[in-house]
Amino acid sequence: MQNFDYMTPTRLIFGKGVVDEKLTNVMSGFGKKILLTYGGGSIKKIGLYDKVKELLKGYEVYELSGIQPNPKYDPSVLDGVRICKEKNIDVILSVGGGSVLDCSKAIAAGARYDGDPWDLISYKVKAQAALPIVDIITLAATGSEYDPGGVISRTETNDKIGYVDPLLYPAVSFLDPTYTFTVSKKQTAAGCADAMNHIMEQYFCEDSTLLNDGFMEAALKSLMINVKRCLENPEDYTARAEMMLDCTYGCNRIYSLGNSQSGWPCHGMEHALSAYYDITHGEGLAIITPRWMKHILSEKTVDRFVKYGVNVFGIDADQDKFAIADKAIEATYRFFESISIPMHLKDVGIDESRIDEMAKHVADNEGLENAWAPLLQKDIADIFRASL
Amino acid sequence: MQNFDYMTPTRLIFGKGVVDEKLTNVMSGFGKKILLTYGGGSIKKIGLYDKVKELLKGYEVYELSGIQPNPKYDPSVLDGVRICKEKNIDVILSVGGGSVLDCSKAIAAGARYDGDPWDLISYKVKAQAALPIVDIITLAATGSEYDPGGVISRTETNDKIGYVDPLLYPAVSFLDPTYTFTVSKKQTAAGCADAMNHIMEQYFCEDSTLLNDGFMEAALKSLMINVKRCLENPEDYTARAEMMLDCTYGCNRIYSLGNSQSGWPCHGMEHALSAYYDITHGEGLAIITPRWMKHILSEKTVDRFVKYGVNVFGIDADQDKFAIADKAIEATYRFFESISIPMHLKDVGIDESRIDEMAKHVADNEGLENAWAPLLQKDIADIFRASL
Repeated sequence: MQNFDYMTPTRLIFGKGVVDEKLTNVMSGFGKKILLTYGGGSIKKIGLYDKVKELLKGYEVYELSGIQPNPKYDPSVLDGVRICKEKNIDVILSVGGGSVLDCSKAIAAGARYDGDPWDLISYKVKAQAALPIVDIITLAATGSEYDPGGVISRTETNDKIGYVDPLLYPAVSFLDPTYTFTVSKKQTAAGCADAMNHIMEQYFCEDSTLLNDGFMEAALKSLMINVKRCLENPEDYTARAEMMLDCTYGCNRIYSLGNSQSGWPCHGMEHALSAYYDITHGEGLAIITPRWMKHILSEKTVDRFVKYGVNVFGIDADQDKFAIADKAIEATYRFFESISIPMHLKDVGIDESRIDEMAKHVADNEGLENAWAPLLQKDIADIFRASL
Repeated sequence: MQNFDYMTPTRLIFGKGVVDEKLTNVMSGFGKKILLTYGGGSIKKIGLYDKVKELLKGYEVYELSGIQPNPKYDPSVLDGVRICKEKNIDVILSVGGGSVLDCSKAIAAGARYDGDPWDLISYKVKAQAALPIVDIITLAATGSEYDPGGVISRTETNDKIGYVDPLLYPAVSFLDPTYTFTVSKKQTAAGCADAMNHIMEQYFCEDSTLLNDGFMEAALKSLMINVKRCLENPEDYTARAEMMLDCTYGCNRIYSLGNSQSGWPCHGMEHALSAYYDITHGEGLAIITPRWMKHILSEKTVDRFVKYGVNVFGIDADQDKFAIADKAIEATYRFFESISIPMHLKDVGIDESRIDEMAKHVADNEGLENAWAPLLQKDIADIFRASL
């Protein structure tokens, strides 16, 4: 078991009606000037925008809207930082999914930094402070509501960087599963794939504990069962709620405290796909994951695949270990397929043409040569090609 | 799934060597005047006392020693509060097991309160502030290092009260599993029983989630496997470490966020046993638990017992549900017996004579009529008698 140093200062307020019940009171602790950040307007359709504005009467609320999936440095982060500085914002209220929150985190750090915010995101400079963030999360997926990181894309350089700093934990995250009732089937499935991959990135490692394995196996099983219930009946409260909490823990480290670090290879590879092609992150992950598994299956890794196959998919343990591993990888693929995720890169508009360029970009930037099963440029290109 | 509002502000610093590595730096954040609290001297035997004093050269360190298991209001809490006030203590450093830390929590609140600290512990007055607490935990058991509560005994009234307040979360908890290498077999087993019961108190409830069930089942299995490894080889680092983290989560609510509350009935009953007879808390719990299970087994509760039996003990699911439940309860009893816990009250010096008095005390003070399977005075007395 590895040493660790862990703290999550985020307050989770979870359940039906919690925004009405507690938002006004929570915001009163942070000052009068709020930057309200959101995306393309789905929060208006579900009435959440009006509710929030109503609950924040008496505050000075400025707005940054139009934050996209795979949120962009330019214009979103830059615009947000500018507003925060101009208006002397006290706190950011992020309302939406993980992309809005990721963007808000970069803004929070940029707002308290005198130079170009890219210095922070690209780790050239360590942030010394950040504005506090409160969020209302409307999508079960990234777990950004309970972690200190965000992923920011810079279009002109095809960069997509996971920016992590303990200053970026949200102060308070509101999670009301009813706000996920209207999430489309496509996004529900992609969110599940994202969360499952967060867990797998931690599960497939050199050493783990009995507790962590059980926790992660339960989370994977819960996600697979509950996403199907959500797809079947989008207003199944229990299923939406269970899926939401499964996702929330995803990038918090709580699933794997004491485990060896594994390097997050699928995320590293997917960042290139969605930076170059702006595809849906969770779909990119679902496509890559089984091909990555197949690629790294070896005498060194097979025992983890056996545990995964037996405990998550109930594969009969009484057979050759590589046979179990193959079945586990096949079951992973079939599961994603069963929730209607397109399972080939060509299905999401990616062809052979830039594979080598993307593989080089990943190899140069993601440090996957240090992953549990190290990946060099050739490995990455092979995984991309197998995913076509 | 139930609504919840959750935050744990405690920083966990876990692993071999973490005290040497980080204690001095951590303490520098809290001021110069430290109250060092500890128990009967085991920290001197293992060299931890000398190490801490060495690491805190340059600080004004005052000491409160002799804190007992089932820590006492008088003299320990009162003495600690007095020292804190007289010396203007900035921070408490608790070095020892859960009893030392529980006592330190009551001191931390009492030190910032003008009246009689019992007002706080007995919930007559809500604390408005508390001194910060740092701890170095040397026993895997209570989980006090990651929760906001402590249990304090007042001898003259036979009261043993679980005092809980969010102000009482430790600021920083150091967990180095090597400090548990010298814990006796008796205390190792009792610590395991305590931690298992913490989990069972949460597991046996009206509704739970797939995630929580998997997490708790994994923790129970991990505890049962690792405690045997610890008993066999007290210096098995991995086993001590896994057991330590299993225990840490015990009373933090993270095992059961979103579950219905179950009422902690075994703890309520055991508090009377150890208040009246000063027995080892974990042993009292182990004795009561299977008798409590038998007592509450009914059409209403049986499905949880089935899940417990099948998933924790691997009992064949293909049989009558009450048969599975009976086997699960029997397996629980046999497990505790297998780690040499005395499994009858008479083995720990408790006879029939005060059972009705204790049952009345529990019924009057612990609110067990509101537990998932409600317990009235007669039920409590029956469970005590079945435990003789």
